[in-house]
Amino acid sequence: MSKPSSPQAVILISCPDQSGIISRVTDFISRNGGNIMDLDEHVDFNDHVFFMRVAWELEGFGISDDQIGTVFQQEIADRYQMDWSLHFSSHRPNMAIFVSKSAHCLYDILGRYQAGEWTVNIPIIISNHQRLKEVADRFDIPFKHFPVTPENKLEQEIQQLAILQELEVDFVVLARYMQILTPNLINAFPYQIINIHHSFLPAFPGARPYHSAHARGVKIIGASSHYVTEELDAGPIIDQDVVQISHKDDVPQLIHKGKDLEKIVLSRAVYKHLQRKVLVYQNRTIIFD
Amino acid sequence: MSKPSSPQAVILISCPDQSGIISRVTDFISRNGGNIMDLDEHVDFNDHVFFMRVAWELEGFGISDDQIGTVFQQEIADRYQMDWSLHFSSHRPNMAIFVSKSAHCLYDILGRYQAGEWTVNIPIIISNHQRLKEVADRFDIPFKHFPVTPENKLEQEIQQLAILQELEVDFVVLARYMQILTPNLINAFPYQIINIHHSFLPAFPGARPYHSAHARGVKIIGASSHYVTEELDAGPIIDQDVVQISHKDDVPQLIHKGKDLEKIVLSRAVYKHLQRKVLVYQNRTIIFD
Amino acid sequence: MSKPSSPQAVILISCPDQSGIISRVTDFISRNGGNIMDLDEHVDFNDHVFFMRVAWELEGFGISDDQIGTVFQQEIADRYQMDWSLHFSSHRPNMAIFVSKSAHCLYDILGRYQAGEWTVNIPIIISNHQRLKEVADRFDIPFKHFPVTPENKLEQEIQQLAILQELEVDFVVLARYMQILTPNLINAFPYQIINIHHSFLPAFPGARPYHSAHARGVKIIGASSHYVTEELDAGPIIDQDVVQISHKDDVPQLIHKGKDLEKIVLSRAVYKHLQRKVLVYQNRTIIFD
Amino acid sequence: MSKPSSPQAVILISCPDQSGIISRVTDFISRNGGNIMDLDEHVDFNDHVFFMRVAWELEGFGISDDQIGTVFQQEIADRYQMDWSLHFSSHRPNMAIFVSKSAHCLYDILGRYQAGEWTVNIPIIISNHQRLKEVADRFDIPFKHFPVTPENKLEQEIQQLAILQELEVDFVVLARYMQILTPNLINAFPYQIINIHHSFLPAFPGARPYHSAHARGVKIIGASSHYVTEELDAGPIIDQDVVQISHKDDVPQLIHKGKDLEKIVLSRAVYKHLQRKVLVYQNRTIIFD
Repeated sequence: MSKPSSPQAVILISCPDQSGIISRVTDFISRNGGNIMDLDEHVDFNDHVFFMRVAWELEGFGISDDQIGTVFQQEIADRYQMDWSLHFSSHRPNMAIFVSKSAHCLYDILGRYQAGEWTVNIPIIISNHQRLKEVADRFDIPFKHFPVTPENKLEQEIQQLAILQELEVDFVVLARYMQILTPNLINAFPYQIINIHHSFLPAFPGARPYHSAHARGVKIIGASSHYVTEELDAGPIIDQDVVQISHKDDVPQLIHKGKDLEKIVLSRAVYKHLQRKVLVYQNRTIIFD
Repeated sequence: MSKPSSPQAVILISCPDQSGIISRVTDFISRNGGNIMDLDEHVDFNDHVFFMRVAWELEGFGISDDQIGTVFQQEIADRYQMDWSLHFSSHRPNMAIFVSKSAHCLYDILGRYQAGEWTVNIPIIISNHQRLKEVADRFDIPFKHFPVTPENKLEQEIQQLAILQELEVDFVVLARYMQILTPNLINAFPYQIINIHHSFLPAFPGARPYHSAHARGVKIIGASSHYVTEELDAGPIIDQDVVQISHKDDVPQLIHKGKDLEKIVLSRAVYKHLQRKVLVYQNRTIIFD
Repeated sequence: MSKPSSPQAVILISCPDQSGIISRVTDFISRNGGNIMDLDEHVDFNDHVFFMRVAWELEGFGISDDQIGTVFQQEIADRYQMDWSLHFSSHRPNMAIFVSKSAHCLYDILGRYQAGEWTVNIPIIISNHQRLKEVADRFDIPFKHFPVTPENKLEQEIQQLAILQELEVDFVVLARYMQILTPNLINAFPYQIINIHHSFLPAFPGARPYHSAHARGVKIIGASSHYVTEELDAGPIIDQDVVQISHKDDVPQLIHKGKDLEKIVLSRAVYKHLQRKVLVYQNRTIIFD
Repeated sequence: MSKPSSPQAVILISCPDQSGIISRVTDFISRNGGNIMDLDEHVDFNDHVFFMRVAWELEGFGISDDQIGTVFQQEIADRYQMDWSLHFSSHRPNMAIFVSKSAHCLYDILGRYQAGEWTVNIPIIISNHQRLKEVADRFDIPFKHFPVTPENKLEQEIQQLAILQELEVDFVVLARYMQILTPNLINAFPYQIINIHHSFLPAFPGARPYHSAHARGVKIIGASSHYVTEELDAGPIIDQDVVQISHKDDVPQLIHKGKDLEKIVLSRAVYKHLQRKVLVYQNRTIIFD
């Protein structure tokens, strides 16, 4: 659904399930003159938790942007013990990209960026190698090289973190960044670091999944985009896709076919994240339509 | 989403879009003690039309089943010029099946029926050939043979219609029935006749789509389930799926591969229809989640 | 590819790779008056192993069926150290089915069987439960009930094996049979027992994969058909397929969606096995086109 | 399959089907000391036509590259009335790109080009608009602007053709070029112009397929890459793929989702073309594995 012209607000809500929540929230928006553009809700009946995403037009809305949160907290959220976050379509978030040596995901992201597909800024590309500096240069994006060794890793990450904070980076995309982040960096961006893993998780976590896929003789390979958490390749999955393979595909062919999957699955995750359509609950994602 | 234990009501709504509808409908249910189990809505912003499906638990609901429609009409529907329909999970609909000579869709349906996958009765199987009577017999379903010629077609349909009405059939599934229905029968079951067509419509409507697909050299074949309307293979599409093929697949191989598609795509459509998740608007379907 | 009219022979070959094999084998067939209908080959360049499947028409072939193997061994196979197996389209193999309580795969197989999709006999259905006897009865297939406890398991398998041998069963299909076979039975049918596992292996082996998939929050679920080996769910994979799911799918919905996958993926594996299109090498399968 | 180290030759063959062809061709290669790396064949049993692709290592091959064709013609091709073409992996073909205003396919191609995924040169990008010149500049590819009007179309094409010939262009990729080529240009590059059409052909040929798809209410959209022939969107299909959509997807969303399909399907076709895995017969393609 899209009607991108006018400024909108999006609110993401989770709370204990009880009767009347949808009615209360939609009434809050309608009563203040907001026109609901999109509403999707979900109830986890096992855990009795309610989730909702509502988007509405701000034109003519009776509460100013900087007051919506406060009023919503008092009138609605307190009563239902809600966790919520409020987002405005007018805000253009800052996205940092981490890469190593593989160019395909980076090209895909920068092509979309330049073509105006995403409402986002890319103030920095960070890499543990020099190789992709030329790509950053082609697209006029600042590039910072942080060679990583087991010895200097923590120190380098502290510097990376400083840059991210200085540039007011909202979220990070690991576009085939072949380093495991430390909790230091992960916890500075909770559920704000998106990784692409080149397998259909939970199959083949960790290193060299295409080699493992070939050895196991699977007939499909996949890619999984997920939020990074402290446990490797075990964070909440945002998107996955697969492609059929055959015995004719040796490891280099798997790598070749996988590249298309990786870039599409990563970019779909970034797009959903940008649209504020992702909520994390119990290490799983709710992806609103 | 499922919590199949207790009786539920489902209401399907469409009306001109305006502010406050969701709030009013959900308030109506909550206020009367109903617990909303599922809500999905959609707005067509080009035509300014609003669509909603709400399911709620009837246990403890303050209005008796036979009064819900009347009260809803007065309190809500009149004001918003709603088209709506109300359905109860306690009602087990009657489904008639029409077949010709191909057994695969019929076996798939009857297997699900016997295994209890669907909440439905099958009081009759109707065919223009005798061949599948043995299948009906295996599953103890009454079978009626109506040989059809150009001359007797209308007359046979009148008799078929009489049987459907006598058996209080709610909807009809054409499980590879190779006759074109006349408007007489179609209009007696508006958007209540589900057909499977063995191509990805609108490609290859009409006869022998696998032959046409082979001649055109497509790399995917498909199947489409749709409601039957007067224009052949042009009714609202409920579900579609495809499978990759290659130059190695001759017409018999396409037919072989297509069978799996046909039965899955038809059965998915029947299941959505049974769950009251389908609304038709402007010859298109809204499929609620 | 299909031209099913006349009797054919199929030979499956594997041997150390070297120059000239294809030429020698095809020359052997051509020289004796056989018309090659289908040829597919594969070379594993890492292990230097050559694989080939050739099908040819037997009409007018200069060697009688019962001599082909002997002559081929002397003229070709000895020289290239070939492993090979020879199959005739005129042979209708005996397939036993093992089931427990789930009916969907069994219905799918028996529907195909009755509709004549497969060239196979089904002399017996074996189960550790009584529940599906009624399905076997509907299709007039003998049904044997072998209740299994930890104590009697081995003994029951010995009796099952005796039946399989008495009925000259060629291969076995585990159509959601919820017992782990012992090596005794497995080794009596090397690469001749086809299982369906309800996950995209190697993810979620063992029990309750849908529960694990839900807990992990995956966005796709799958099914895998494979030959049974002594290590649980670790045998050579024949076919896999997946379906997209969402956070809305709870465990019962995953089970519902998975059923369609399971039956299609199992039946595709059986069909490939019947067509002699599967070769096993290093716990992987070569699936000839 | 891949073992990209040493130079290879590829021969594509089609001829009337008869016994012994495979044997003769493979013997020709083996006898001259060539090691077959890949062989795939296909027989069209309706038309009695035989197709084959063979790749072999040239190291140690007993015939020099420039003599292979002549010898093959005399020893093999004449006898079997073969159409054939011979290709060397050492040859790096020249590929021209035509674009209009949409950047996504162009970025995808240039990203692969720069990343070294394809063995190809791109000497020129031609467009009827100025908009994508900046993309060409970023990748240091010459860009020529040919504004096209109904009046100057033929004249512009003549100039385009002159450039293509001057640059010794081997084949042309229409990466969302929104002009219909005239027979003049098409016939200069028979089956050497690859187009991407943004629908699953033959559904929705011509202009605005996403609008048509939305109006028809399909549940899947697709993209098709094909060789350009004189009849619009009716040339031999090389690759197709689809993505599931829903009623929630309005036309802009279809366009957004379709972009990913278009670029992947186009690039897969280019890759197959580059690998010499495509043969055209009767307006269909044989795609060798």
